[in-house]
Amino acid sequence: MKLYLLKNGVNPRRVRIFLAEKRIRLGDDVPFEEFDMESAGHKAPAFLAKNPMGTLPVLELDDGTVLSESVAICRYFEEQRPEPPLMGRGALGAAMVEMWNRRMEHELLLPVIGTFVHTHPFWVGKREQIPAYGELLRRQVVARMAWLDGELARQAYVAGDTYSIADITAQVALLTARGALKLPIPDEQTNLARWWAAVSARPSARA
Amino acid sequence: MKLYLLKNGVNPRRVRIFLAEKRIRLGDDVPFEEFDMESAGHKAPAFLAKNPMGTLPVLELDDGTVLSESVAICRYFEEQRPEPPLMGRGALGAAMVEMWNRRMEHELLLPVIGTFVHTHPFWVGKREQIPAYGELLRRQVVARMAWLDGELARQAYVAGDTYSIADITAQVALLTARGALKLPIPDEQTNLARWWAAVSARPSARA
Repeated sequence: MKLYLLKNGVNPRRVRIFLAEKRIRLGDDVPFEEFDMESAGHKAPAFLAKNPMGTLPVLELDDGTVLSESVAICRYFEEQRPEPPLMGRGALGAAMVEMWNRRMEHELLLPVIGTFVHTHPFWVGKREQIPAYGELLRRQVVARMAWLDGELARQAYVAGDTYSIADITAQVALLTARGALKLPIPDEQTNLARWWAAVSARPSARA
Repeated sequence: MKLYLLKNGVNPRRVRIFLAEKRIRLGDDVPFEEFDMESAGHKAPAFLAKNPMGTLPVLELDDGTVLSESVAICRYFEEQRPEPPLMGRGALGAAMVEMWNRRMEHELLLPVIGTFVHTHPFWVGKREQIPAYGELLRRQVVARMAWLDGELARQAYVAGDTYSIADITAQVALLTARGALKLPIPDEQTNLARWWAAVSARPSARA
């Protein structure tokens, strides 16, 4: 197999962290190639034949089957190597992680990425920008961080008592909010800060 | 358990179709209550205590556990009643359905809903509208329908040879595109039309 990643890519980082938590080593266990935004190999015709969406990450299996979408790639590895479970156990466990991962994605990660795309100079000329929409999303990001802080007063990790893929999604969202949007965790959000310190201290945070 | 739905709601319809495909009967097997946009019971404090997102559907289990997010609710039923499988079998099967369901959601359903929210008179005064963003999304919906038509030249259903949750997501997206956006399947998209006829002929389409 071969995993195609993007240097500093938000979604590829989700898979990097997921694999590190599974003790699956990039390079040794899973050969990989890293594209960058400048050469943009993932937008070249040869690569679009693999993934017409032109997105990364992409996992190519030995029989030529191509998997795109971070969470789909994570699910492949979850099924192949169930320990430690990162996508929940049993009907209720799997459903709870699914719920929280989707909340982190729809309420936090997608608005963070949307704010970045629609307001940041980096994307001028690369994507159609609608700044008013970016500002609407920025307000949503701020509100959702406060909401998540409240939720984390009741549970250690995003989906409950144990670390899961929902933490990874929240982690890359807040990393991007801090770096690209200059929206760090506010001082008063002490639950979010406690959680952030915990996930950042894991070895997978450097994956 | 009790399932909370929204009359004519796009996401609740995904769960309705999913349950019908599983031969799980609303009412008989799963008690339910249907809110509507006018009385908006899902925005009332008592309901926000169950789901702070204020979204529907919501599944409340007998022990008081609350599940929101359509796909999380579907996953709960998939694990409880695996037959017929709608979320893929084995590592590769599960990952492929996950990939296609996410493509249908991110490339089609979310842009359809976004176009509706940002351009339709129905949402005036209810949600902040940014018409320019809605028009950007509308162009994406048109482009993605053409892309999906091409993909369906190679496979019977969205995720391959068998019907899955990815078909359900595409089905509600195209239903909403036709109804709310006046974007029916164009005559020349014969693969998409063939697939549409097939999914619409299933009893679950009337769920």
